[in-house]
Amino acid sequence: MKIFRVNMTNLTVTVEDVPQEWQGFGGRALTSAIIAKEVEPGCHALGAGNKLVFAPGLLSGTTAPSSGRMSVGGKSPLTGTIKESNVGGTASQKLARLGVKALIIEGQPQGDGFYSLHLDKNGIKIEEDKVLAGRGNYEVIKKLDEKYNEKIGIITIGQAGERKMLSANISIKDPDGGLRSAGRGGLGAVMGSKKIKYITIDDTEAPGVPVADPEKFKEAARVFAKGLTEHPVTGQGLPTYGTNVLVNIVNEAGGLPTRNFSTGRFDGANKISGETMYDIIVSRNGKPTHACHPGCVIRCSQVYNDKDGNYLTSGFEYETIWAFGADCCIDDLDIIARADRICDDIGIDTIETAVTIGVAMEGGVIPFGDGEGLLNLMGEIEKGSYLGRILGNGAEFTGKAFGVTRVPAVKGQAIPAYDPRSVKGIGITYATTTMGADHTAGYSVATNILKVGGDIDPLAKEGNLELSRNLQIATAAVDSTGLCLFVAFCILDNAEAFQAIIDMLNAQYGLSLTADDVTELGKTVLRTERAFNQGAGFTSRHDRLPEFFKKEACPPHNAVWDFTDEEIDAFWNF
Amino acid sequence: MKIFRVNMTNLTVTVEDVPQEWQGFGGRALTSAIIAKEVEPGCHALGAGNKLVFAPGLLSGTTAPSSGRMSVGGKSPLTGTIKESNVGGTASQKLARLGVKALIIEGQPQGDGFYSLHLDKNGIKIEEDKVLAGRGNYEVIKKLDEKYNEKIGIITIGQAGERKMLSANISIKDPDGGLRSAGRGGLGAVMGSKKIKYITIDDTEAPGVPVADPEKFKEAARVFAKGLTEHPVTGQGLPTYGTNVLVNIVNEAGGLPTRNFSTGRFDGANKISGETMYDIIVSRNGKPTHACHPGCVIRCSQVYNDKDGNYLTSGFEYETIWAFGADCCIDDLDIIARADRICDDIGIDTIETAVTIGVAMEGGVIPFGDGEGLLNLMGEIEKGSYLGRILGNGAEFTGKAFGVTRVPAVKGQAIPAYDPRSVKGIGITYATTTMGADHTAGYSVATNILKVGGDIDPLAKEGNLELSRNLQIATAAVDSTGLCLFVAFCILDNAEAFQAIIDMLNAQYGLSLTADDVTELGKTVLRTERAFNQGAGFTSRHDRLPEFFKKEACPPHNAVWDFTDEEIDAFWNF
Repeated sequence: MKIFRVNMTNLTVTVEDVPQEWQGFGGRALTSAIIAKEVEPGCHALGAGNKLVFAPGLLSGTTAPSSGRMSVGGKSPLTGTIKESNVGGTASQKLARLGVKALIIEGQPQGDGFYSLHLDKNGIKIEEDKVLAGRGNYEVIKKLDEKYNEKIGIITIGQAGERKMLSANISIKDPDGGLRSAGRGGLGAVMGSKKIKYITIDDTEAPGVPVADPEKFKEAARVFAKGLTEHPVTGQGLPTYGTNVLVNIVNEAGGLPTRNFSTGRFDGANKISGETMYDIIVSRNGKPTHACHPGCVIRCSQVYNDKDGNYLTSGFEYETIWAFGADCCIDDLDIIARADRICDDIGIDTIETAVTIGVAMEGGVIPFGDGEGLLNLMGEIEKGSYLGRILGNGAEFTGKAFGVTRVPAVKGQAIPAYDPRSVKGIGITYATTTMGADHTAGYSVATNILKVGGDIDPLAKEGNLELSRNLQIATAAVDSTGLCLFVAFCILDNAEAFQAIIDMLNAQYGLSLTADDVTELGKTVLRTERAFNQGAGFTSRHDRLPEFFKKEACPPHNAVWDFTDEEIDAFWNF
Repeated sequence: MKIFRVNMTNLTVTVEDVPQEWQGFGGRALTSAIIAKEVEPGCHALGAGNKLVFAPGLLSGTTAPSSGRMSVGGKSPLTGTIKESNVGGTASQKLARLGVKALIIEGQPQGDGFYSLHLDKNGIKIEEDKVLAGRGNYEVIKKLDEKYNEKIGIITIGQAGERKMLSANISIKDPDGGLRSAGRGGLGAVMGSKKIKYITIDDTEAPGVPVADPEKFKEAARVFAKGLTEHPVTGQGLPTYGTNVLVNIVNEAGGLPTRNFSTGRFDGANKISGETMYDIIVSRNGKPTHACHPGCVIRCSQVYNDKDGNYLTSGFEYETIWAFGADCCIDDLDIIARADRICDDIGIDTIETAVTIGVAMEGGVIPFGDGEGLLNLMGEIEKGSYLGRILGNGAEFTGKAFGVTRVPAVKGQAIPAYDPRSVKGIGITYATTTMGADHTAGYSVATNILKVGGDIDPLAKEGNLELSRNLQIATAAVDSTGLCLFVAFCILDNAEAFQAIIDMLNAQYGLSLTADDVTELGKTVLRTERAFNQGAGFTSRHDRLPEFFKKEACPPHNAVWDFTDEEIDAFWNF
């Protein structure tokens, strides 16, 4: 495999051998290593000095179940930290099959014009884009499917990325022409700053991914698939209800942030729950179960149709539904689905955007619960009006614009769908992750609430620091494999399935890794990322939650955030 | 003297003895000591945890020439650092005569209503304000002069402070009912967050400031006044042309930032110069010379009338004229004066606001040089429209809103009127001061360009770190005395005048300070401020200029910013 480097300053492409030090890396391990080595931490994230890296996971392109995840890395314009944003869709497998270990985009062209990249077995072509700039992601995909064919892989940004809005995401086409998002941290703005509107990937006659020991690989993949399909979360809960199975569970646990994080239960929870959504989807001939990338056995995505049975959105996640729902006090799934579709189309992170609107509601821009008003605000972002330029820059920015002090964000990134006062393990993750507030960096909710991998009281401090630490280390490794993070639900409870991952890696690469090597990889990734952040000026003082979590008790448990600074800082003792 | 503490959470006032550790402090030394001791560095600057401190300088309230400066301190919502903003007007002397060593405002009331404070010989009254909220500063002063009399001292915020805009300033009435501004760092937003619209100060029958040895004091004050009036800058340049004498000088030196810091010379410089301004003022029956506080012998302020001879603005500074002028490519003093007046009236920092508009021009909001467009943008800030809420939050915020990467700011505060590439000593000050980019923190321009206190090449690195360090230490001490910083022009060249300051302090307080004690005071202040900033998460990585200064050469010298990180970090070796 090779490293493909695109220089947008002089519009050249080079193909490089993979340095020895990066041979064992893929996905997040590789994007973070490249950014840490090649990007000056103090650079302007939207300037020529930043880089944008796409890296398939180590197992991507193989037949390993649920292995089609890609890492996108860069310095985040939203947080100022290093950023890895992890995404499904078809790009990861296609890049891997084309022999792309990493695609690095660097530099910045003169002028206002946009470009596109086209990857195929012959390499990369850079072309001026005269047609699709200014268009939404759905139209980009439709037009490119027409130009090539429906199998073409697509990486694209919407108007938000073109305008360098700090919440802009990068969209990846899924197997059915829907969208998956590398959502968090504003990497769409980085792609916009490189003036790349879209990347097409044609893996026709691609060499494919070599596997050193195909038989061993096949056996390990079988064991792993069995583990996934037999676990109640990955085999039943997620396939049936998607991630939105969580609304009722987290609401019941009193950790569903509601009304801009002022309480932990939402009266309208049942109306936006996974169970209700399932019934709606079935009644409208949508698909309750759907894979975001070929070969996924969890299939937590779905297709949500409108009242007339027409496609509205897919990949309709708990986080999105919580944020536009409970956090904005909106109990109408159709409105939330429309907001989700607009986010996907203009290419903006649903979590950041919805939390932002909750902050704007607190600032009096529109009332809580005003669904039509919310859709109007989405229209402002789409138009790029002055209000839209405020909202498109995220929760912290919007809080400053409207003088709101209850702003749920860490390192500039909005806090997701679990109140850290009532689910303390995830609070540690929000505070300490190198990414800014991010639930996926160490999903303590699994053990705090779902009782997967043990049972640690979400309301007490005991054990939660260690829980978050162990999960963050493991996650950094999983994010490097190309496996969906949701495999963690299974491997936390099933040692055989965990071993199967290691067996697959060993079979593919002809290695003899142990579980300790995997842990070491995770630690290396976290340390690399932290060193970058320190170079950018971050200290332990930034590993803190907003002060209102300490001062305002969260009903129904009336819990406060009570970890001391010293306790939090012990996170890095590994 | 006493410390007066106003708690806005429960609307109470307490009067406290001055702790021993603060006895020798005044002005900046005191505000910074109080903030460092009483404010948690990680607090939200607009939350109940921040405090706002007003402290007259050590010599304020006496007959010392040019000693009527007050320090306003708090955690800055613009920069996140500690902040001291220094201001003239009549408040400092009145507070000192009332025995107020410091006025500390803490807490935060419930509800949307505003309050006022009234200080007189009987203490402090807190009252609800039902009339003046929503009004501009000029109307506030007019109405309060009518309610009390023209001698009433007034501290007020405009609409910008009420809306908690991050560039909002605090205005102080001057002897003629005009305005002086504690301009930088958004402390007006802190006052707004405390819900205080204005503070009135009636020093009728005030006890006054005791002086231990009146004869010695009088003699020292005489020597000091003589020094000021005999120095060419404080005795001639500033009284005649005001600070705007600098436009032609800095333009000639190639350090006048023009067109959003893209070049160092402005074609229209002469049309906005101090010399041209003098002629206009005289021809319209304005006042070319005017004191910002009683007893000032420098008298660098002026009264600028409109074409019809009506009062338009006063305290019309070089920084303001440069920023709305050269930086926005506007060569019409009347437009700049109208913009200045609007800033004063709505209570927003002229430097931050004008640099912000330069950034907005670069972002395509209006063209460079569009004077009417600029006044329209000021109207947007005044209205508090969505665009106004962007612009009112400063240059860095506006750069993010419009995707502009050439944003001249350090620690979130806009860089003032001297290009650091062509005037390297001031670049060190911008990078290292505890305040965010601030020329007054260590005015190296004096020696780099005006050749006061020596002659250090502005284009070479040699000597500029030491110059900035020595000036920052001295300035921290001067800012504690209540003396105008401009006395530095004199004392840098005149050892006798410098000694006279120490003699005045000794005579007033019955002390026997030496020059070394003054230097130690300055060092103590800087270290205290830095420790606060470190507690808020700042590191040496934040002591950096924006990267474009390294990458883009500044005409006419084609100079770049070439200090290494290690060289800059040596600043703190004292």
